[in-house]
Amino acid sequence: MDPSEVNIPPLKDLTIDNITENVHMINSQCDDPRMKYLLERLVSHVHDFARETRLSTNEWMAAIQFLTKVGQISSDVRQEFILLSDVIGLSLLVDSIDHPKPAASTEGTVLGPFHTHEAQLEGNGGSISHDPEGEPCLVLCTVKDTAGKPIENVKIDIWETDSKGFYDVQYAERDGPDGRAVMKSDNDGVFWFKAIVPVPYPIPHDGPVGQLLKKLKRHPYRPSHMHFMFEKPGYDNLITYVTPSVFCLQSSITDFPSPAALYLRGDPYETSDAVFGVKESLLIDLGTVSAEQAKEYGVKQGGRLITYDFVLVTDDESRKLREEKAMQAMKKLGRRMKLYQGLPVPDVD
Amino acid sequence: MDPSEVNIPPLKDLTIDNITENVHMINSQCDDPRMKYLLERLVSHVHDFARETRLSTNEWMAAIQFLTKVGQISSDVRQEFILLSDVIGLSLLVDSIDHPKPAASTEGTVLGPFHTHEAQLEGNGGSISHDPEGEPCLVLCTVKDTAGKPIENVKIDIWETDSKGFYDVQYAERDGPDGRAVMKSDNDGVFWFKAIVPVPYPIPHDGPVGQLLKKLKRHPYRPSHMHFMFEKPGYDNLITYVTPSVFCLQSSITDFPSPAALYLRGDPYETSDAVFGVKESLLIDLGTVSAEQAKEYGVKQGGRLITYDFVLVTDDESRKLREEKAMQAMKKLGRRMKLYQGLPVPDVD
Repeated sequence: MDPSEVNIPPLKDLTIDNITENVHMINSQCDDPRMKYLLERLVSHVHDFARETRLSTNEWMAAIQFLTKVGQISSDVRQEFILLSDVIGLSLLVDSIDHPKPAASTEGTVLGPFHTHEAQLEGNGGSISHDPEGEPCLVLCTVKDTAGKPIENVKIDIWETDSKGFYDVQYAERDGPDGRAVMKSDNDGVFWFKAIVPVPYPIPHDGPVGQLLKKLKRHPYRPSHMHFMFEKPGYDNLITYVTPSVFCLQSSITDFPSPAALYLRGDPYETSDAVFGVKESLLIDLGTVSAEQAKEYGVKQGGRLITYDFVLVTDDESRKLREEKAMQAMKKLGRRMKLYQGLPVPDVD
Repeated sequence: MDPSEVNIPPLKDLTIDNITENVHMINSQCDDPRMKYLLERLVSHVHDFARETRLSTNEWMAAIQFLTKVGQISSDVRQEFILLSDVIGLSLLVDSIDHPKPAASTEGTVLGPFHTHEAQLEGNGGSISHDPEGEPCLVLCTVKDTAGKPIENVKIDIWETDSKGFYDVQYAERDGPDGRAVMKSDNDGVFWFKAIVPVPYPIPHDGPVGQLLKKLKRHPYRPSHMHFMFEKPGYDNLITYVTPSVFCLQSSITDFPSPAALYLRGDPYETSDAVFGVKESLLIDLGTVSAEQAKEYGVKQGGRLITYDFVLVTDDESRKLREEKAMQAMKKLGRRMKLYQGLPVPDVD
């Protein structure tokens, strides 16, 4: 760059007290107002963190080395930065901000790193798990809108581990997808399938994030759960699927789902999920298949049963709620802001 | 982990408003008070950042992908996370906090990624650069303590680029070190050598940090400068050298230097250093070799000249000042803190 094009305020003699303002100044040349705001807040928080902790050079270097390891262990089948975000509660927080839910609707939770594109389409009554050691479980569900009207033809992605707590993709040698399926809701908003009772399992903890959990004396377990992801045009959070490989290779992603999961009440890790995903509204009690249900669904009487009624929010409902809550939060912070592409930026006009 | 060992407060129904407190609770099992405090402040700032910006899932994913790239481009000869820390002013801030300087002493600045262990020992009068295109420059320096007393036998590491703005290690094919040397101060605290006039150069900007600078409409240049690092037992900031390979491979580092550098006044990038290193006290004017100096030092009369008197701080002076300033800052924040291994932690007794 030609030095004559350098057109920024003089940056010199930077001290503990004036450096933040000066970094803001040099970054203020950015012409994307949202990026400028994100950088301004990021730099303020990073600097405040260093000032409040009197961060030492040794600690700074330990952090540099930790983050480098987190990047370097990531691959097309492992995303350690997402795991890091998960274990400090950031993933759940961002989902809550981006996908606010009206009171009557199904709450979102963390996606986890094990969704794939490979699942087979199954009709109602199909089996999603073929693990002979798993405890069979009948799953009966409906999908409705916030007015209680059934939604037909919703594409539903479902995935769970095998009886040992591993997803299919965690086995180096495998024949194809298992423990996962894609289904469609019928005219009554119903979808049902045969699965196995979910079991608890640890998140990958053989890398830097696992070491961090260990230093914090935290366990790496997630309580027993089954994942769901819903997709239908016009409804929120259901547009683009995410696979592990996308995390590294795809540079522009149009949208992200707010996935759901059902958790078994009474699980030993129910109240200490390593990634903070459990919500009261997503907890279910395992039921028992009645004589009538056994006959209707062709399964054994007395077997395990999960029933759940999902409630989806429309894109419009979600966007409106998100923008309302964003402006409320900004007002509470005392900042004069406006929305730019649906997200807050300083209102400098 | 045996679920019966799980002994933490229930974590469930986490919302935008209560998640931070809950993450603090689960992390509070950590038995290292300093690590606990660092995590507490880190989680608070990360969550506040997401709340204040209403961070979207797409933006979160862009950050995940950016950080992954920063980790993956790092190697044993490149540290992109340090570069990232440099361009947001964090490196300079941490140095200022960790190596406070009394008024009379030489200020510190950023280390940069180009120091190595390879430099040859040179006696007074040695040449550190063999670039025939470089403009010769005589460098006359002294090292004194804060009382003005010369310090003998200080080990001084010196490094600079060639006339094209590249350090020796940036050339894939090279015979050995050039543009760098290790010297010792003599009985009068004097060291002097022959070098070339420093030139401006860009930090590595072909990676994710370079892309970030571009989006922020910032140039990647550093003003012309020459690096110095001092080492003598009992004096601050001079204990362990850092080489690029240490950044990735060495897991425990005992201490870090607070390096110095001299900057040429009037450089086109003097007031817009990409990594915020320039300080008024480190700016020098290029002088001219007098007839007398030409004779004394065996160089051409009228040639370029740099003179500088460095002032070193003792370990004790530095530690005392650092701890004083830390406790002052904590008091200003209204926090009840105590020092733990020289660094602040909450005083909970």
